[in-house]
Amino acid sequence: MSNKINRKIVLAKRPVGKPQIENFHLEESQIQTPKEGQVLCKTIFLSLDPYMRGRMNAGKSYAPPVEIDEVMGGGTVGQVIESKYSGFSVGDFVFGYGGWQEFWTLQGKELKKVDPQLAPISTATGVLGMPGVTAYTGLLNIGQPKVGETVVVAAASGAVGSVVGQIARIKGARAVGIAGSEEKCKYVKEELGFDSCINHNIPDFAEALKANCSEGIDVYFENVGGKVFETVSPLLNDFARIPVCGIISAYNATELPPGPNLTPLLMRDILVKRLTFRGFIVWDFAAQEKEALSELAKWIKEGKMNYREDIVDGLENAPEAFIGLLEGKNFGKLVIRVSS
Amino acid sequence: MSNKINRKIVLAKRPVGKPQIENFHLEESQIQTPKEGQVLCKTIFLSLDPYMRGRMNAGKSYAPPVEIDEVMGGGTVGQVIESKYSGFSVGDFVFGYGGWQEFWTLQGKELKKVDPQLAPISTATGVLGMPGVTAYTGLLNIGQPKVGETVVVAAASGAVGSVVGQIARIKGARAVGIAGSEEKCKYVKEELGFDSCINHNIPDFAEALKANCSEGIDVYFENVGGKVFETVSPLLNDFARIPVCGIISAYNATELPPGPNLTPLLMRDILVKRLTFRGFIVWDFAAQEKEALSELAKWIKEGKMNYREDIVDGLENAPEAFIGLLEGKNFGKLVIRVSS
Repeated sequence: MSNKINRKIVLAKRPVGKPQIENFHLEESQIQTPKEGQVLCKTIFLSLDPYMRGRMNAGKSYAPPVEIDEVMGGGTVGQVIESKYSGFSVGDFVFGYGGWQEFWTLQGKELKKVDPQLAPISTATGVLGMPGVTAYTGLLNIGQPKVGETVVVAAASGAVGSVVGQIARIKGARAVGIAGSEEKCKYVKEELGFDSCINHNIPDFAEALKANCSEGIDVYFENVGGKVFETVSPLLNDFARIPVCGIISAYNATELPPGPNLTPLLMRDILVKRLTFRGFIVWDFAAQEKEALSELAKWIKEGKMNYREDIVDGLENAPEAFIGLLEGKNFGKLVIRVSS
Repeated sequence: MSNKINRKIVLAKRPVGKPQIENFHLEESQIQTPKEGQVLCKTIFLSLDPYMRGRMNAGKSYAPPVEIDEVMGGGTVGQVIESKYSGFSVGDFVFGYGGWQEFWTLQGKELKKVDPQLAPISTATGVLGMPGVTAYTGLLNIGQPKVGETVVVAAASGAVGSVVGQIARIKGARAVGIAGSEEKCKYVKEELGFDSCINHNIPDFAEALKANCSEGIDVYFENVGGKVFETVSPLLNDFARIPVCGIISAYNATELPPGPNLTPLLMRDILVKRLTFRGFIVWDFAAQEKEALSELAKWIKEGKMNYREDIVDGLENAPEAFIGLLEGKNFGKLVIRVSS
């Protein structure tokens, strides 16, 4: 394999605000021959996720930043083409953090087998992968929805939000989605079975949300922040729980919003309504990954868990697709089909 | 008793911003003769607490507002002077929400006996009352300090903060206080045994706090908000817990602080550091009241729990003392001695 050429997308320069195409660079490199314990894989699907925006900045987030000229990190579903690890054989489908490239070599023990009988292998980047486990663990550990409660989910048609609302329904709660277009809202209601879904781009968004949460909001699963959060906030009930999973509206911001400073209002709400805000990432609940995946697979089999993928062909199209993701242009879990 | 006159302080008009003397009015009224099941008491101590500011506003907080011309509410230690309830006899000391007045009549079942052998009866408004139980339940249920962790407490010389820091030490954590004067800080360190205490009015408050929290902050017990919170915030460790008990700095505010709006920074911190903010009031943990009081009494007996009371004589001085409380002029638990 070592005579084959790898194509990869590296971080060319750090973005200021919204990433541009020139922040990325497509390069070629030699394929790395696996050493003892390693596995060489060909990328089939590359997962694009909002957290990657944070990794493009220099500052420490919960994970170290991608370095300049380093390949962009990311989850990938690959097929083993050479294995020096006893756990995997040539032809196996695996999930690993291979990054934005066509070939990658990783320690076998860092990889997980993907069962193509269970569901399409691309789902290992979505409902049966990090986003699905994020939704499951964040909603159940922090949100703790009870029968009859109202769960509001921002970015409801996205990889995480879509799973959150469906689990809320499975657990006997009402699920109200928030999404960025009428088409997405239709999908969230009709295909995902949410009780309702509100388009945050309509002029009377606040009134519509209120009308659809007539008994207030008990759980707000936060993926978005900003105006969506400010609209949700007055509807939160006493003792509401707010798993903070993402604040995509702020990821491209170069400055703070103008005043007044609303922090005292938020703190007052936390106090008076006895709210719980808790941030998390999926690794915080690593011990529950197996349980989450087993439940999610079961629900898919039972027809209780639907999902939608937004598949873009070609590694070279990853930067544009990623830029669109941060603006909500994707519709469903965004995946790059790097090879077939 | 019905020929005796009661003096009471009523809410004369609602304050805008900082309360003024004219928001209160001292009135006389007839003493109410107790009916079957009721007890008539003479107030000995009246507790003044920051939460009362919220009750002076018209808007719903976690408790309904005091109405205009209604007696100001508040916890009181009284002595029974007439009892039509089998549980109490004339001469008994009891705690109840008698309000800002010299005599009050309440249902016997709403009252608790105060044991003058256990500690001075005034402590039923402080370390052995609502503030002590607030500190105990908020710190242990939400803060969950672990051995060796750093617990920072705002308003550290106050009724709640002083107990929080001492419990943190008892549980093996480091306690760092924040208070409003050098004299208070000296007391917090020397009498309460905190590891350190920082005066938030010194110019290099942020540097001093950082220097005294060299391993970051694991628990921040929030009583204050505003600038103190903004200074604490960058020092919070991953997975820090923030029990939100009060935000006294905002209680008198008539408008929000100027911009920029710092809410996205707070949400980003919650996400990236996986913080837990949870608001609470003491009633949320009512089931633990007995346990809390028993532990606190034990610690007082063992010399592990000190307290300080700021006793002001005369019901007529309650308004001025309360106005001072909101500005941090008290030093220790503020109590009005209404009669001896």
